[in-house]
Amino acid sequence: MHIDADLQAGGRLAPSPEQAHYLTRVMRLALNEPLLVFNGRDGEWRARLAEVAKRGCVLAVEAQVRVQAAPPDLELIIALVKRARLETIVEKAAELGARRVRLAITERTNADHTNVARLEAIAAEAAEQTRRLEVPQVLPPARLSSILAGWEADRRLMFCDEEAGDAARAMAALSEAGGRRWAVLIGPEGGFSAAERAAIRDLPQATPVSLGPRVLRADTAAIAALTLWQSTLGDWAGA
Amino acid sequence: MHIDADLQAGGRLAPSPEQAHYLTRVMRLALNEPLLVFNGRDGEWRARLAEVAKRGCVLAVEAQVRVQAAPPDLELIIALVKRARLETIVEKAAELGARRVRLAITERTNADHTNVARLEAIAAEAAEQTRRLEVPQVLPPARLSSILAGWEADRRLMFCDEEAGDAARAMAALSEAGGRRWAVLIGPEGGFSAAERAAIRDLPQATPVSLGPRVLRADTAAIAALTLWQSTLGDWAGA
Repeated sequence: MHIDADLQAGGRLAPSPEQAHYLTRVMRLALNEPLLVFNGRDGEWRARLAEVAKRGCVLAVEAQVRVQAAPPDLELIIALVKRARLETIVEKAAELGARRVRLAITERTNADHTNVARLEAIAAEAAEQTRRLEVPQVLPPARLSSILAGWEADRRLMFCDEEAGDAARAMAALSEAGGRRWAVLIGPEGGFSAAERAAIRDLPQATPVSLGPRVLRADTAAIAALTLWQSTLGDWAGA
Repeated sequence: MHIDADLQAGGRLAPSPEQAHYLTRVMRLALNEPLLVFNGRDGEWRARLAEVAKRGCVLAVEAQVRVQAAPPDLELIIALVKRARLETIVEKAAELGARRVRLAITERTNADHTNVARLEAIAAEAAEQTRRLEVPQVLPPARLSSILAGWEADRRLMFCDEEAGDAARAMAALSEAGGRRWAVLIGPEGGFSAAERAAIRDLPQATPVSLGPRVLRADTAAIAALTLWQSTLGDWAGA
């Protein structure tokens, strides 16, 4: 279970009322039964249900069972799409080990806002399911132009571009480009405008990569791109 | 639009009543307006709406606009999972260019039947969206043991196994294994039993591949595995 507080042996935690409800009513955890907790900083710890009160409970933290791994510094930048598809994308980004999801407003994006808190909750749940010890951050929507304007000099960009040609060659280029901080950029379903494509390709940090000869939906493209990145440069490659 | 009939210049087609309804009522195609049709064998053809009757319509086939490409002979074998997730997997298999989807009943699979016709309809729609000219076949559920017993000698198997170790090395092995006919096998959410894993690994055609250090849901695993295959051995590699 993801909690916010610091974790150390002998610590006592007060989960939120919703979490307490989940533990005592849904999971029906009995007094002294163990569970695993993490906060995204201190690794994974075994804790026990130490007290149950009317409106909450207390967990006693015992021992660390996994140290905090440092996942690759990988961002997913995704154009705002319909809610259901956006929720799938955030869930999959969490499963595939992205550290941060940025929501971009592009020329061909109709929406300009979304429920970020709900997306964060989805990311937390997916991280728990996948046994990740950190929850990806979801940033509020921003214009693509301002994301590009504030680009960090040492962050490389895997630009998923249907006009990029051969995927295998592009992944080799990606692998050569190296670097430790990356972002993966997926366009809106209608594609980027010509001006946007030019601005992205002008970034010296950008490597265009094709995702094959078939038109992919945004969620499929996001999963495929994160897979290619993880297997070439990320922690699937045993790096 | 996907239709069953043969396609040739000068041919006349009678779409199904549902298709006729879609063309004349939903799309509101006018007489003589053009559309694209394919049957999975003869490439893509331009046709025109030639007649509209009360309960149907006639299309006049004019000229071929794309020849039929031969997609890689790639099967996806997936354990039966909950309906919604199974539908997502079939949709994504179509987008990612699988030619056939086999539904497997494993020791840890609860379901043993599903609506194959509905899955085929989903595959056809996804193929149209992605502008593929062929629709993946969906086979009725079969026991994993009988799928393995009837394994074709010349079909290689990418076995997605969480215990397989380094993904990059596994993909290199896959690439060396070569061959033109492949299958990708994804387990049920509870994993394969020890006996099933042993039987799969005993197939001389099998190459175990890890999908990274995080536990993936079945739909994410299917998309990730098809992506790795396409980018290494399939038509994303410009082969």
